Amino acid sequence: MSLDKIDIKSGDSAICVFSGGMDSTTLLYHLLERGVKTLAISFDYGQRHKKELKYAARTCANLDVLHKIVDISPVRELIGGNALTDPKMAVPAGHYEEEAMKVTVVPNRNMIFLAIAGGWAVAEEVDLLALAVHSGDHAIYPDCRPEFVDAFGQSLRAGNYHQVSVYAPFIEMSKGEIAAEGAELGVDFSQTWSCYEGAKEPCGVCGTCVERAEALESLT
Amino acid sequence: MSLDKIDIKSGDSAICVFSGGMDSTTLLYHLLERGVKTLAISFDYGQRHKKELKYAARTCANLDVLHKIVDISPVRELIGGNALTDPKMAVPAGHYEEEAMKVTVVPNRNMIFLAIAGGWAVAEEVDLLALAVHSGDHAIYPDCRPEFVDAFGQSLRAGNYHQVSVYAPFIEMSKGEIAAEGAELGVDFSQTWSCYEGAKEPCGVCGTCVERAEALESLT
Repeated sequence: MSLDKIDIKSGDSAICVFSGGMDSTTLLYHLLERGVKTLAISFDYGQRHKKELKYAARTCANLDVLHKIVDISPVRELIGGNALTDPKMAVPAGHYEEEAMKVTVVPNRNMIFLAIAGGWAVAEEVDLLALAVHSGDHAIYPDCRPEFVDAFGQSLRAGNYHQVSVYAPFIEMSKGEIAAEGAELGVDFSQTWSCYEGAKEPCGVCGTCVERAEALESLT
Repeated sequence: MSLDKIDIKSGDSAICVFSGGMDSTTLLYHLLERGVKTLAISFDYGQRHKKELKYAARTCANLDVLHKIVDISPVRELIGGNALTDPKMAVPAGHYEEEAMKVTVVPNRNMIFLAIAGGWAVAEEVDLLALAVHSGDHAIYPDCRPEFVDAFGQSLRAGNYHQVSVYAPFIEMSKGEIAAEGAELGVDFSQTWSCYEGAKEPCGVCGTCVERAEALESLT
């Protein structure tokens, strides 16, 4: 199955894995604009930038989208030792392509999110499980690559009676292209949160701040 | 990759998905007997037979195996509507093959367990992720079938830098054959818990009680 070949249509139903950042917020708008009945799910996995969950909840409230935040923070003890869940580790500055960024890889994070969201998708018998992975993620995060997403989708269908398709329309797009689509859809990027640090203001130097700034600059 | 062709050897390391029932207890003995350094993981997912976790913890303590019980009970709200997590639904009597047993299917349960256990396996850099699915499960539980387990393994490897193999040595065995292996390995089946009801004594009529009783009877 080629992931980007899924035709969605008005009246389809979806669960959107939603972090509250610019990519998944654009995806949420993308689904709603196409008339897809959408539920959203976010995860508290002990991330230091838990602040993103507040942004996620506010966006869903504004869009009248049912939103669940699932507390799976006990998994942090198992998959710790990375800069996103361990407050004692430094978040590196720079671009995603850089070797130093590997300390921000959380083992199997996307599969854990997708497995739980997939269980909900099966229970609700929706058509689609939507996620906002994009090509800029591929270099450093193996669980954002097409090979992973495709194998995950096969596994989800093999393991359940109700068949859910994985919808990842940004998987070959750059973050700049997502920003352009978001701008066209009317996303207010000031209402999305990306920074890995999760302090009062974005740090401006961590990988996700740098990538976000470049994407937004490309709009002008 | 053919799942049952994995050669394990003394000194390998594994994480064993461990419910405290007769199948996964036999698997734990199977790994330890072969000299595999084994960690065990169980899940509190809001199951009515939470009692199995006490049996799991006791067995691991007796065998000196490090054991984690991960509380993912918030997922029950998402994947409810089945007889294993909803105390208001009746647990059906009979064999796994029967249509009525479908109400005991928890959406995507094994993938949720395996995704979290897989994250731990990657973080700990172990060789194997071991699970005790067997052929008697295949009729009713799609997430116990070889197609699922194989696709899951591919997804786990595609999504992570550290490569973990899925070890499911019972996948083509009957529960009677597992009982025979367990007996040979010295498993005390009175120290394992299966019943879906989770009352003081096993109910004797639910699917897992019936399958267990038949397997143990086949030993005599």
